[in-house]
Amino acid sequence: MSNDTRLIPGNTVGILGGGQLARMLSLSAASLGLKTHIFCPDQNSPAFDVATTYTIAPYDDLAALDVFAAACSVVTYEFENVPGHTASHLAAKIPVRPGVRALEVSQDRYNEKEFLRSAGVAIADYATVDSDDDLTAALERFDGIGVLKTRRFGYDGKGQVMIRSAADAKDAFDKIRKVPAVLEKLIPFDREVSVIVARDLDGTCVAYDIAENHHEHHILKTSTIPAHVSTQTAKTARDMAMRIASSLDYVGVMGVEMFLSGSGEIEDILVNEIAPRVHNSGHWTEDACLTSQFEQHMRAVAGWQLGSGERHSNVVMENLIGRDCERWPQIMADPSARLHLYGKEETRPGRKMGHVNRIKPKTC
Amino acid sequence: MSNDTRLIPGNTVGILGGGQLARMLSLSAASLGLKTHIFCPDQNSPAFDVATTYTIAPYDDLAALDVFAAACSVVTYEFENVPGHTASHLAAKIPVRPGVRALEVSQDRYNEKEFLRSAGVAIADYATVDSDDDLTAALERFDGIGVLKTRRFGYDGKGQVMIRSAADAKDAFDKIRKVPAVLEKLIPFDREVSVIVARDLDGTCVAYDIAENHHEHHILKTSTIPAHVSTQTAKTARDMAMRIASSLDYVGVMGVEMFLSGSGEIEDILVNEIAPRVHNSGHWTEDACLTSQFEQHMRAVAGWQLGSGERHSNVVMENLIGRDCERWPQIMADPSARLHLYGKEETRPGRKMGHVNRIKPKTC
Repeated sequence: MSNDTRLIPGNTVGILGGGQLARMLSLSAASLGLKTHIFCPDQNSPAFDVATTYTIAPYDDLAALDVFAAACSVVTYEFENVPGHTASHLAAKIPVRPGVRALEVSQDRYNEKEFLRSAGVAIADYATVDSDDDLTAALERFDGIGVLKTRRFGYDGKGQVMIRSAADAKDAFDKIRKVPAVLEKLIPFDREVSVIVARDLDGTCVAYDIAENHHEHHILKTSTIPAHVSTQTAKTARDMAMRIASSLDYVGVMGVEMFLSGSGEIEDILVNEIAPRVHNSGHWTEDACLTSQFEQHMRAVAGWQLGSGERHSNVVMENLIGRDCERWPQIMADPSARLHLYGKEETRPGRKMGHVNRIKPKTC
Repeated sequence: MSNDTRLIPGNTVGILGGGQLARMLSLSAASLGLKTHIFCPDQNSPAFDVATTYTIAPYDDLAALDVFAAACSVVTYEFENVPGHTASHLAAKIPVRPGVRALEVSQDRYNEKEFLRSAGVAIADYATVDSDDDLTAALERFDGIGVLKTRRFGYDGKGQVMIRSAADAKDAFDKIRKVPAVLEKLIPFDREVSVIVARDLDGTCVAYDIAENHHEHHILKTSTIPAHVSTQTAKTARDMAMRIASSLDYVGVMGVEMFLSGSGEIEDILVNEIAPRVHNSGHWTEDACLTSQFEQHMRAVAGWQLGSGERHSNVVMENLIGRDCERWPQIMADPSARLHLYGKEETRPGRKMGHVNRIKPKTC
């Protein structure tokens, strides 16, 4: 479908997926006078509460997708594992942004790494693993140490096996059920950072300030901005993110995760992975910038000009995971805190229930 | 109904009225994990798009009100002209916040003035006018000059007649169709300012910074923060607003409009009127404060603690009235601007279609 479609206020943006990201996208769309239509197979999706309308149907229900496409002016998605045939079926009828190519690249770790290498950004060395023999050969190359990851459907540490010894290596491929995988060379890194970048239909990029991320149990716990990195590192990281977005001819917001080693002017940066959507490590933009990542994504997919990504405050974002959300009264008592809850009915361990941004006056 | 009801996330707040204020209240409620239920007689109300659910029914449909009350944990409203029997019918079943008393006071200019005088804040002199003779007597007291205003249903300059001469006076009471009115002594003022104040269930007040307001054709055009007033005036204005809220035993956000004359340390302040709801001159809080007036109102009516009203940026809010909203592409091109559109289908002269906040780093 026409790739130069530009919306006007009152038009409808379709969103595949109905979780908290779709919910926050819908809230931002409403502020811009856009309507939203959520397509999600799950009853009680958090985004339904705030969307103009919604469809409950499986992602492979082509008839439902056709009705959805006819009701929208453009379609976007809140998660990268949109089935390929869902995206291509829609893309034949209506602009899908960020686009099918971004999905293809990010749904498969090997494709992603090949793409990142071709885009000219630094990444850890890697090898494909389709058999025990492949794994043995790859480990030999990487001095017996590496992380084995499934090519598809990995997130929050799922589908990964750390290999530090021959014993680890022995059943590693079994542990991931012998599905196609990649072995990544293990990089000793000091910190994980990320850059949220937006790119519009005309190719203009806006990169937000670099965030320093801390994980617990493989799930993002906090993002701190400003990150403790040199000016040069911050610039390099943002440039990398913009280069990645441009190489993909991307339209929308993308999260780019990076590993940082060393300190001072000699920091090394390797890109870990990309997420072709608004990103958890960008939730701080809602309360520390004039234009949040959610509004930025909506502006881009609507074919509109991007807003400023300037930050007016320092901020620490904390994810509220599982029963963390029970602390809501204490969080509301903190005058520096802004609470965001996702309206999920059931609290489960490891489930993202909300987040809180704590802001302070800007120092740099 | 119990006045100490406190909600938990997941509960539903009912809102009477479905305009842009209810829309922005619903967006803030969603961020806090609250659901909203809009009650409004108008098809295509702007708030329906973002509310969890809605009821279309007249305000005097008691059966519909009963179903609405049963579905909510607390009820609030976006406009002060909620019919008295609607509010009292609901209040017998469910907490209504800010409350019936706030409505009674603000729906009638005479009651409002009597209340303000009793609360100990300065207001312009006034007299009731129920006949031509009353008007003649009152004008005599005020040197022949004053503003005749209907006691009820006046807003944006409607229901008002300016009297500066005997000729003006002659048909003034006819012009307002001989309905009960008040004559206000004409106060020569230099500026109109307002204070947005919130008060929670425990009586704690948070007053935002004073805003300087500029009107065009009797409709608010811009609010500028910080206002150009002395520190002492700013303090007095905020104290007045908090005193008014406390005197009403108010729960929620209130807008207090004031007239200012003189300059420097000798400024005089008179309270013009109060609005028992979120207020157009408080829309700047959305982008210049951590806690917006909309979130603040939701926290108060939910029985929760208020957030900080601190301002992190300087800001000018501009209302987009009628075809002003056609400037949306230019507004989005301004990196200091955040656009808010209300999703109204029809653009009419004088209709509030959206607003824009333009922010700058905080200077004071």
